[in-house]
Amino acid sequence: MIRHTVSFALVHSPGSAAEAEFLGTGRRTLTAIPGVHDFTVSRQVSPKSDHTFQFSMRFADQADYDAYDAHPDHQAFVSSRWQTEVTSYQELDLVPVD
Amino acid sequence: MIRHTVSFALVHSPGSAAEAEFLGTGRRTLTAIPGVHDFTVSRQVSPKSDHTFQFSMRFADQADYDAYDAHPDHQAFVSSRWQTEVTSYQELDLVPVD
Repeated sequence: MIRHTVSFALVHSPGSAAEAEFLGTGRRTLTAIPGVHDFTVSRQVSPKSDHTFQFSMRFADQADYDAYDAHPDHQAFVSSRWQTEVTSYQELDLVPVD
Repeated sequence: MIRHTVSFALVHSPGSAAEAEFLGTGRRTLTAIPGVHDFTVSRQVSPKSDHTFQFSMRFADQADYDAYDAHPDHQAFVSSRWQTEVTSYQELDLVPVD
């Protein structure tokens, strides 16, 4: 099991329609890709980070994760939305320790 | 609901007894504090971050989180272990969006 998370900040004003549209399109686009489980959109509320949101998702294994990463809908979301609307981000890939 | 996560890197060699002891003591100490749920220790395996582990836990509400933060056992773990054995870290506090 691999949990993939990315925390990020947006160019959009907090509470704006553009912010909501970005989050909604991200959720809709990425949850439709095979192998994506437990997709969660969260607000990041700690003052110790300047990121304001996080996407989190779970993959059964590395093969499913790789297929997601290479999927055209993921690649299109990154190039058409992420690269122009996200000002900073941090990805983590987490594998639970027994 | 608030999910509190902290990814971090340790001074210890990967796979060392000192690394395992730090993770075990962290788990044992922090899970014994009231209000801590779903405590997970994960390896951070993305090359896009130099952190190698993550602690993740869930609190029912801000009051439980504040009580954890102020708890003497948490404070003692931070001062006696975290400050000397952790080389870098990043905290996030995540509240799911409907």
